[in-house]
Amino acid sequence: MPDRSPSDVIKPEVRSLSAYTLKHVKADVKLDQNENPYELPQELKEEVVRRVLTRPWGRYPEFVPASTIRALAKFTGWTEDGILIGNGSNELIMAGLSVILGTGKKAVIPQPTFTLYKLLSSVFQSNAVSVPLKADFTFDVDALVEASRDAAVTVICSPNNPTGTLLETDALKRILKMTNGLVFLDEAYHEFSGQTALKILPASPNLIVLRTFSKAMSMAGLRFGYMMAHPEIAKEIHKAKLPYNVNIFTLTAAELVLERPGMLRDAIQTLVAERQRLITEVRKRPGVEAFDSCANFFLMRTPRNARDLFEALYAQGVLVRDVSSYPMLERVLRVSAGTPQENDRFLSALDKSLETT
Amino acid sequence: MPDRSPSDVIKPEVRSLSAYTLKHVKADVKLDQNENPYELPQELKEEVVRRVLTRPWGRYPEFVPASTIRALAKFTGWTEDGILIGNGSNELIMAGLSVILGTGKKAVIPQPTFTLYKLLSSVFQSNAVSVPLKADFTFDVDALVEASRDAAVTVICSPNNPTGTLLETDALKRILKMTNGLVFLDEAYHEFSGQTALKILPASPNLIVLRTFSKAMSMAGLRFGYMMAHPEIAKEIHKAKLPYNVNIFTLTAAELVLERPGMLRDAIQTLVAERQRLITEVRKRPGVEAFDSCANFFLMRTPRNARDLFEALYAQGVLVRDVSSYPMLERVLRVSAGTPQENDRFLSALDKSLETT
Repeated sequence: MPDRSPSDVIKPEVRSLSAYTLKHVKADVKLDQNENPYELPQELKEEVVRRVLTRPWGRYPEFVPASTIRALAKFTGWTEDGILIGNGSNELIMAGLSVILGTGKKAVIPQPTFTLYKLLSSVFQSNAVSVPLKADFTFDVDALVEASRDAAVTVICSPNNPTGTLLETDALKRILKMTNGLVFLDEAYHEFSGQTALKILPASPNLIVLRTFSKAMSMAGLRFGYMMAHPEIAKEIHKAKLPYNVNIFTLTAAELVLERPGMLRDAIQTLVAERQRLITEVRKRPGVEAFDSCANFFLMRTPRNARDLFEALYAQGVLVRDVSSYPMLERVLRVSAGTPQENDRFLSALDKSLETT
Repeated sequence: MPDRSPSDVIKPEVRSLSAYTLKHVKADVKLDQNENPYELPQELKEEVVRRVLTRPWGRYPEFVPASTIRALAKFTGWTEDGILIGNGSNELIMAGLSVILGTGKKAVIPQPTFTLYKLLSSVFQSNAVSVPLKADFTFDVDALVEASRDAAVTVICSPNNPTGTLLETDALKRILKMTNGLVFLDEAYHEFSGQTALKILPASPNLIVLRTFSKAMSMAGLRFGYMMAHPEIAKEIHKAKLPYNVNIFTLTAAELVLERPGMLRDAIQTLVAERQRLITEVRKRPGVEAFDSCANFFLMRTPRNARDLFEALYAQGVLVRDVSSYPMLERVLRVSAGTPQENDRFLSALDKSLETT
């Protein structure tokens, strides 16, 4: 290989990408990743661990983890042969986009949103078309309908990360009806909104719904997600899904959590109430804007430079997410709702930070 | 979406693929997946579980799992910024190929080999060129050198699955020198061969070495793999590697296993000795061929139809792999080396099956 650099063989679309990175910093109050601060019950964890110790670790998981899929079918009401499980929903997004996108294929993605969709569209060398949110961060439905018409894929996160805004079901129906492609709806935060597209899935053969256990379900450390689609679509995406992709520990935990669907209800209610309290409180601060949200986080814009404010909060032990480099989000921070105590810490750290400007 | 079927948007290369499937069947003697039948020590498992119970499950793993990567760097001698970890090595193969392959890109793959490489090459719409092994299942090095010259990627499994044959280091060097692309070397079974390309990695900027903990390391149920490459290549592949891809349970287990590198030495030696014993024993059966192998499995060809023999063995509680649909492998079964007791069960089941023909 004498006459070129080995990295020349990497696609130019990839070389020009900046990687999705996150400097993971420890903090007393961690409000940066939209996690559920309420852990699963200790006795459930101990039961997971007890069961895992009875399984062989040297053997592959089942090729099709039938009992987990059956539990998800029961939990969601969707058909088993339309469900795929993944090592987090990200993996299913990658598999799903990989069987559709390539050179010359159009991917429609609202902006700002979760960065992975656009990143993967670039890796697959497709034509990624951004549809900006409106100024109030709601979806521009007319523009989405128009752009998605000839798209191979439209990827929408609802409630949207990082804005928390919801795509109404009627708007989704319009897109589904007008597009010639598939629509990936990432419902990572749906539990906090009380809304899901699952109810229109039976009548929507081009809809793919993604879910995760990393947010409301409090299993971010274990990596578990699932996808629901019509079986003929699931079958195709399954071909690019790696075999044995979910480990025995996570399978065991997911099944136990699915046996107790009401278990996290209180935590979710608390987080929704706390999100509202935070928005209301933040709005009392002069010059600070807080945006409505249907998720377990919200955006706020202050007069201060976002990085400075981020650092001022971090110096007081409070970690939030600086999203100011996203389109439209100048001077904006994203704050996850924590426990009431954590949120109080955030509010007083915010006051101190704003004073010192 | 009135005028077409939703699955029309799936790439034709994917629609025409048969999925990688495996009917997972329970059996007393499981010799079908090249697993290590010797489990990790019970006290190590209990320590893993004890540590996992002290970690939050609702929080994401670290963005870069620094301590695991540090442990791998110590274990391998390779530089930390050239190591990526994955949810099994399959995930790193997918990420690695995704940043290189696309329409018009050539992927060279010896055949028969692990099916995933060709499947992913098809998903990425690249031009997959098969280079057949020689009749004795050794690599056709001249043909590989020639074919890989203008390839974007050459993917070689050594020892090869399902044949167990090894690519000699000198042959690998020839390919690395002559190709204008990258070479992925899947060393899933290297511990059983005593050979690794790691020693030529420092001088080979276009080499990517893949390893897994699913075989010799006895962690197939936990999903862990890693990739070693020059940092400038690792950096690009990292962009398509999903964040938080390895869960906290597997990270904890991998670190503990890496602290005791000698722990599995006896198991590996036993499996190598048993593989040799099986080959020797099988060759004593009239009309049965057994092929030399450098892995923890071997191929055998009998006068019987492979499916019939597979079923006859399975009826006696012994599960092997029917690989007769692979190119060149008519009437061939793949048998993993198990414990001495399991292998005895296999041999007597084989005798009974051959008698009844």
